[in-house]
Amino acid sequence: MTTDCHVSISLDGYLAGPDQSLDAPLGVGGQRMHAWHWPGTEPANEADAAATADLMTPRGAYVMGRNMFGPVRGPWASYDGEWRGWWGEEPPYRAPVFVLTHHAHEPLVMAGGTTFHFVTDGFDAAYARAREAAGDGDVRVTGGAATVRQAFAAGVLDEITLDVTPVLLGAGERLLDGVADPGLRLVDVTWSPAATHLRYRVGR
Amino acid sequence: MTTDCHVSISLDGYLAGPDQSLDAPLGVGGQRMHAWHWPGTEPANEADAAATADLMTPRGAYVMGRNMFGPVRGPWASYDGEWRGWWGEEPPYRAPVFVLTHHAHEPLVMAGGTTFHFVTDGFDAAYARAREAAGDGDVRVTGGAATVRQAFAAGVLDEITLDVTPVLLGAGERLLDGVADPGLRLVDVTWSPAATHLRYRVGR
Repeated sequence: MTTDCHVSISLDGYLAGPDQSLDAPLGVGGQRMHAWHWPGTEPANEADAAATADLMTPRGAYVMGRNMFGPVRGPWASYDGEWRGWWGEEPPYRAPVFVLTHHAHEPLVMAGGTTFHFVTDGFDAAYARAREAAGDGDVRVTGGAATVRQAFAAGVLDEITLDVTPVLLGAGERLLDGVADPGLRLVDVTWSPAATHLRYRVGR
Repeated sequence: MTTDCHVSISLDGYLAGPDQSLDAPLGVGGQRMHAWHWPGTEPANEADAAATADLMTPRGAYVMGRNMFGPVRGPWASYDGEWRGWWGEEPPYRAPVFVLTHHAHEPLVMAGGTTFHFVTDGFDAAYARAREAAGDGDVRVTGGAATVRQAFAAGVLDEITLDVTPVLLGAGERLLDGVADPGLRLVDVTWSPAATHLRYRVGR
């Protein structure tokens, strides 16, 4: 029953590039941080394969930021059509995903076990619902940066895994800005030329 | 005949904490990034011991920023006495060290082979003198952040080793801010609970 987070960042600490949009879901240049596990590419070695497997293993429930769910800003109706996430009709989560938003939205039941629930009363409420939905399972905070920062601030993270890629992005959204040092203990490191996978336990 | 840099940073990318002073040479909190090789402490494992040995192995010559040499700002005469560096009378460099400064200063000949030369005409001049002094040897850029950024901008770095420590500093001087992506290739990673030692080659 752990709560964790597993995200890719650039060597200069950015989780996403600037100017996220429909054409650039990860921001400009942001896809470079994901070359090590891009669908259809072969992992560089066992380290990348294991980290990819970790990302693809369903958790009991997820908490996700609105910007990670999609490029729609403001009311959902401002999008021409129904936005159903970046992942097609069968997202890889295969569990309830609680999406933080200021704009109410009916749940979206997707194929393969994923349901997107939309939570308008803040991180703590979304996390409580995820924790309950997960039962004896684990909760994963998927990102983006603002959501990970809220998870640190709420003190709910037991672990965080960072895939540090040899990229300098120079601009975008920094993952750890404004995070008070929670006391991180490095417990595992694996690497390939494409990424260093650092696993930290939270709390001294 | 390589040129490299080997520095410790926090997980959020800071080379030093804020408010560097005589009492806090590495800025407030900055010493936490150096716990893995603090003099008198036992390295946590072989990875830290090897990284410490790399730091202590003399190069042919060094380029060093003024703020790394000491806390004196403005003219040298503003310091009460003669500032001779942080390292006592026998610094660990044992080679010529070219210190960037806006204020001329006679060379300081220290015990054990270290001489501090003061260069007032910029990074390129300091690097050229270090390269010449090193002969067939290697040049190391010691830091601080501004000097490392100048080395990247000048295109002289062949390698950079970062000791990433599990510390969030939250403020201070970021190492890689404003560095255009030079194309980094990760060639070696070792780690202990206290630090991950990442060695990158520069250039695609």
